[in-house]
Amino acid sequence: MLEINPERFHETFEQYSEVGGTANGGLDRLALSATDGEIRDKFVSDLEALGLSVRIDELGNIFGRRSGADQSANPILIGSHLDSQPSGGRYDGQLGVLTALETIRVFENLDIETQRPIEIVNWTNEEGSRFKPALMGSGAWVGIHDVDEILSTTDEQGTSVEDALTQIGYDGESPCNPNQIPHAYLELHVEQGPVLEECGREIGIVEGILGMAWLEATIYGEADHAGPSPMHTRSDSLVAAADVITGIRRLSNHLADDVVTTVGELTIEPNSVNVIPSKASFTIDLRSYDYDVVTRGIDQIEAELSSACTREGTEYDLEELWRIPHTEFSQQICNSLETVADELGLSHERMIGGAGHDASYLADVTQTGLVFVHSVDGKTHNEQEFTQWDDAVAGAEVFANTVLKLANSEETSQ
Amino acid sequence: MLEINPERFHETFEQYSEVGGTANGGLDRLALSATDGEIRDKFVSDLEALGLSVRIDELGNIFGRRSGADQSANPILIGSHLDSQPSGGRYDGQLGVLTALETIRVFENLDIETQRPIEIVNWTNEEGSRFKPALMGSGAWVGIHDVDEILSTTDEQGTSVEDALTQIGYDGESPCNPNQIPHAYLELHVEQGPVLEECGREIGIVEGILGMAWLEATIYGEADHAGPSPMHTRSDSLVAAADVITGIRRLSNHLADDVVTTVGELTIEPNSVNVIPSKASFTIDLRSYDYDVVTRGIDQIEAELSSACTREGTEYDLEELWRIPHTEFSQQICNSLETVADELGLSHERMIGGAGHDASYLADVTQTGLVFVHSVDGKTHNEQEFTQWDDAVAGAEVFANTVLKLANSEETSQ
Repeated sequence: MLEINPERFHETFEQYSEVGGTANGGLDRLALSATDGEIRDKFVSDLEALGLSVRIDELGNIFGRRSGADQSANPILIGSHLDSQPSGGRYDGQLGVLTALETIRVFENLDIETQRPIEIVNWTNEEGSRFKPALMGSGAWVGIHDVDEILSTTDEQGTSVEDALTQIGYDGESPCNPNQIPHAYLELHVEQGPVLEECGREIGIVEGILGMAWLEATIYGEADHAGPSPMHTRSDSLVAAADVITGIRRLSNHLADDVVTTVGELTIEPNSVNVIPSKASFTIDLRSYDYDVVTRGIDQIEAELSSACTREGTEYDLEELWRIPHTEFSQQICNSLETVADELGLSHERMIGGAGHDASYLADVTQTGLVFVHSVDGKTHNEQEFTQWDDAVAGAEVFANTVLKLANSEETSQ
Repeated sequence: MLEINPERFHETFEQYSEVGGTANGGLDRLALSATDGEIRDKFVSDLEALGLSVRIDELGNIFGRRSGADQSANPILIGSHLDSQPSGGRYDGQLGVLTALETIRVFENLDIETQRPIEIVNWTNEEGSRFKPALMGSGAWVGIHDVDEILSTTDEQGTSVEDALTQIGYDGESPCNPNQIPHAYLELHVEQGPVLEECGREIGIVEGILGMAWLEATIYGEADHAGPSPMHTRSDSLVAAADVITGIRRLSNHLADDVVTTVGELTIEPNSVNVIPSKASFTIDLRSYDYDVVTRGIDQIEAELSSACTREGTEYDLEELWRIPHTEFSQQICNSLETVADELGLSHERMIGGAGHDASYLADVTQTGLVFVHSVDGKTHNEQEFTQWDDAVAGAEVFANTVLKLANSEETSQ
């Protein structure tokens, strides 16, 4: 079995974590920000040092290609994302990219020639925090989004994706689509949930991902002075929103076992201490493996909005920002991962992931696998996110050995 | 009886409304902003055109003095404020300043010499929207606030009151305190509530103002990913805040008849669609004429916070930003206003005001009166705020005639 170099892997991880590193040990590396530009430069220079052929596509997705014995064979694509949440952790995305990088370094050191080429990728804007939608680069690459529409999408300051790419020098020329459909896509990620911790196993073999919807609700009330306006004359958008948020929290209790609901963004206007809020806007994130449950959940959210607004004399809009069905990953790759983990003497658990990953979109075009490693307390999107280095190393060894198998596999089908 | 000039009064009102006027017919003239600077310049030039002696104090309060026959007599102080809410109306504050200005114009036109000097004032930052606390200029002038502390107070961008005053050229030299305690203070304001509309009368004679408290609550939860975090592991600061906001809305139902409660400001962190909010901060505005009820209300808000945070596994802080007891105005001035209104054939109603006014602080140092005119639908702090011009004229005539009486009154007491 291949062994990775744990010290080199860790040293690289520490170097990457300094770019956009926060005082509390997290990362602030929003997609296409200056720090995202800086980490991309480092990544490209690391790829070039390995002799990989680097290309940047129109949306800034970065690919590095290592030749195979059969250059015309469909490549194995491996990677993840280097962008982070505004107060995110160091492992989310970055660990997957660096596991792929370490894998290629091991192949180089051992002079391994694989049958198929291997391509490493850093996907643009996985997080969706600055620009929406999330999984932007991979979604456009597989054809879910129109590239021109994505380029003209703006952040809250009105900066477009196109301008942000130009500002950091990642407005690449390669078309944003697969010139060769990969033979397989493999990604490693921190679990970001409690399953591995609760079952006490080392490797998560992900069979699928929850389906999800992102909605935006806006409630329209009437601004008025907080003093002389009697309670019975008010139409307070925030009181109605609070009512809906409480209802959304309860939804997950009766829709289905695996349903999670979150209101993550909320802003009110005019946001002044002695003025009744005239407008409250908030997002709703709703997930379940059963896509019918997601659809039913949306209906129930609308019912909550409607009754809260009737009570408070307010009006509302409900907009669907994004919806993605549940993903099923390749059972063949799940089996390979399981075999490799067994050969390495590592315990493993098959599971369903709660978070969207670039792998979800890749599963639309090729056989795809996703490996999870343990996150302590399941904490993520948080500066306290933490993975024991031994767990990262275990994951990387499962990953590298599985990539080697895939890269020498002779099936011509995807 | 004195008559004011309705056309001149209206024309002046329209001119003043252009400075910081919004597309929807409201005002955006935050305290010490560039537009506040512009309207102050216009006001000072109007005072100088009347031959008044203008002085600016350390907090930018603008005074214009008209001599009286007895220069050593304590003056009558009249005025209000020219700053507005971010999306405020044209009448709130501005109508009171321009009623005072029109009063002095009438006196000038008719060559009336009063016994006492008359001073007109524009108080700095009545609204408290950009800089807290509200009623800043009048509060410091009567000695409730320390001038140096106020000067170093900052807005959300970190700009201090001192720097903001310098930027618009209103960092005056006159000390911010009464060099002569006024014999009386009189202010006219739009009602901002429904009482005059409901009783169908023209003039509100305000006997007092609700006591109030401004609080800021902060709830600390834990950021985590909206997907893979099961509901039972969450500590969601926004869910807890929604629970408290619902509780605060109910508070007013059982504390006392006249209680009003408002959550006007709310911000959450990190405010990202797929991250459980780690921090939610919101303000609470609580008012009642019975100050014991305000105190009891604060205790109940703390109880709501405590139980919501226990349910959600979150922590909280509750800070008191500002508290002001209820105000009782001079019964003698109420009687004068009533007599004048009767003499003018105008209907009137004695009432308690819900909003804080500069008059509330002035009542601490001298006999004070407050006249309300009708606001349509009671709407205020809102671009739709509207007062029929006939109502404004009626108020101004009551105001001017009462000022004349006060300015010729011979009592030496305050």
